Amino acid sequence: MTETRSTPTTLRVALGARSYPIHIGPGLLGDPQWLAPYLAGRQVMIVTNEVVAPRYLERLKQSLADDLTVCELVLPDGEATKTLACVERIWDALLEAGFNRRCTLIALGGGVIGDMVGFAAACYQRGVAFVQVPTTLLAQVDSSVGGKTGVNHPRGKNMIGAFWQPRAVLIDTDTLSTLPPRQLSAGLAEVIKYGLIRDADFLAWLEAEMPALRGLASDALTRAIERSCTIKAEVVAEDETEQGVRALLNLGHTFGHAIEAHQGYGTWLHGEAVGAGMLMAAELSRRLGWLGEAETARVRAIIAAAGLPLAAPANMSVDDFLAIMRLDKKNLDGRLRLILLRALGEACIHDETPAETLAGLLEVFPRR
Amino acid sequence: MTETRSTPTTLRVALGARSYPIHIGPGLLGDPQWLAPYLAGRQVMIVTNEVVAPRYLERLKQSLADDLTVCELVLPDGEATKTLACVERIWDALLEAGFNRRCTLIALGGGVIGDMVGFAAACYQRGVAFVQVPTTLLAQVDSSVGGKTGVNHPRGKNMIGAFWQPRAVLIDTDTLSTLPPRQLSAGLAEVIKYGLIRDADFLAWLEAEMPALRGLASDALTRAIERSCTIKAEVVAEDETEQGVRALLNLGHTFGHAIEAHQGYGTWLHGEAVGAGMLMAAELSRRLGWLGEAETARVRAIIAAAGLPLAAPANMSVDDFLAIMRLDKKNLDGRLRLILLRALGEACIHDETPAETLAGLLEVFPRR
Repeated sequence: MTETRSTPTTLRVALGARSYPIHIGPGLLGDPQWLAPYLAGRQVMIVTNEVVAPRYLERLKQSLADDLTVCELVLPDGEATKTLACVERIWDALLEAGFNRRCTLIALGGGVIGDMVGFAAACYQRGVAFVQVPTTLLAQVDSSVGGKTGVNHPRGKNMIGAFWQPRAVLIDTDTLSTLPPRQLSAGLAEVIKYGLIRDADFLAWLEAEMPALRGLASDALTRAIERSCTIKAEVVAEDETEQGVRALLNLGHTFGHAIEAHQGYGTWLHGEAVGAGMLMAAELSRRLGWLGEAETARVRAIIAAAGLPLAAPANMSVDDFLAIMRLDKKNLDGRLRLILLRALGEACIHDETPAETLAGLLEVFPRR
Repeated sequence: MTETRSTPTTLRVALGARSYPIHIGPGLLGDPQWLAPYLAGRQVMIVTNEVVAPRYLERLKQSLADDLTVCELVLPDGEATKTLACVERIWDALLEAGFNRRCTLIALGGGVIGDMVGFAAACYQRGVAFVQVPTTLLAQVDSSVGGKTGVNHPRGKNMIGAFWQPRAVLIDTDTLSTLPPRQLSAGLAEVIKYGLIRDADFLAWLEAEMPALRGLASDALTRAIERSCTIKAEVVAEDETEQGVRALLNLGHTFGHAIEAHQGYGTWLHGEAVGAGMLMAAELSRRLGWLGEAETARVRAIIAAAGLPLAAPANMSVDDFLAIMRLDKKNLDGRLRLILLRALGEACIHDETPAETLAGLLEVFPRR
């Protein structure tokens, strides 16, 4: 069978000695040339989940040379499994297999797998190599790039973790063909985020292309992934450990994390909570006089067009939100730090939202 | 009461943006000037253990300003508690107290507390500040300096951890006055190590001063701590993440870790196991033709003079040693890596010890 396939694009996350490539294109998963250069030694452990394993594990294994020791670990699926207990299973498996400091972990799956495997790699024998092979749109455009790794704690999202960069990110765009619509929408939330915080032209393009994206049109998806990863790589290169500008990538996340934690991890997908959270941030920005009615309506419209929720959970009170938001990692010395929009395409870090303005928004924001 | 007290010495661990001071002297614990400059924000958590808390916790707290939020957590004592479960208790306490990314953890205690608190700091909200306040000789001369943090796993020592540097190391030499003799001997093992691997003059000085050191003579102890920390700081500055020369600090540790893991963590003190392990390394170096009889006898004599064991546990077979040593973090691609002595004062990394030479040593090395 002859196929015409586009050539992969390679972006670069510029972090000095820790720089790495992001390869984006169809068919990367089964092709040995993309993985081999990033393996640290001869011991490789692929960690994936029950949903992804039947679809892509064999294909990935076939791209690994015969002289490697290859182990695999299949974890359960879902945000509720993003726990220290699951990471301990990875460490146990590595030690049982006798893996040393020159081993390589491969994260095959969505954001949950990527975050856990990255954290396992960060702390196994004080740090080993890992490669991200993201198979959901959300992981491809956001969580696999930039080295944020970790697990949830009952008291808050991603509270335990490390900054630990992968050796490479391999984005096989073919994997999106099997992505369920709900997961696709969740990924689009993070794509929209890049337009909102930093690129008004990309936002306008997304508004026009949303039907194509939701219809899995591969050209549109590839362009959305490339633009998202370009912005992410720029921001991470500027501010690896979130001392400043990287916090802008958290638009909608303070609200969203509160929803995820309150509802029980996995009840709302991360991207769904971020979708509603971005609308909350936009509405708050309007209340602060930064966005007009028309701009807020555009935010609402694109979130709706992506198939994301426009309302918060029915059972979440103002106090529920505030209690969890107070624990957000971005807050310093007791002040609530929010990412808001000065304009469409321009986000800002804001430490001075009046408590009554925030409470006012939380009071009237729709529930579902 | 008027006292004549020596002025503290300050050494520096040179690691670019992560550089930090080691302050060494009497009376640092209760004096606010030594701690205040290293606190990241206004939230401080002191983590200590049941043995150290009654002796030094109040004194440390008195040196903290009134406008700080100060929490404390008292953990059980001993190497058997150096587990992920204990680190989780620290994370739980931090989240319960609502601590943010600008908090500071203070490790008040020996090597176990320092390693766990450092690891907790490395992974809390992807990394927060911490200060080492070591109260055992072993922690003062070795584990508090250099940023190796972590916990044990049933399958091996320090298998889960991170490189995470403290903001400062505060060594109050007064704390040694309450150190039990067995703990003092354990600390002397690491002091002797520095002489063996890098400084023959220091080794000769230690041979002469051993009675004074065991008698807690404060001048001798201070000099031993200063010289040990100077060597440790040099080696760490050269090779923070143990790509090369830092491995030399592991003289005796591959044997020692095997003893600790086999006997159950805490049965042998770490320094005791390192003491016996250094003698094993010296005997192996003799078998390889690098040390003579007289030099090996000097190693045996100083280990004995420090009150450390000269024999391995009675119930450890050759296979017991080999099975655990095979999992050592230094090993790469299946080859056993040992730190051995080319001469007294000169250590080397050796990957090519013939299996029969090692087994021969393990066979005849005394058991007790």
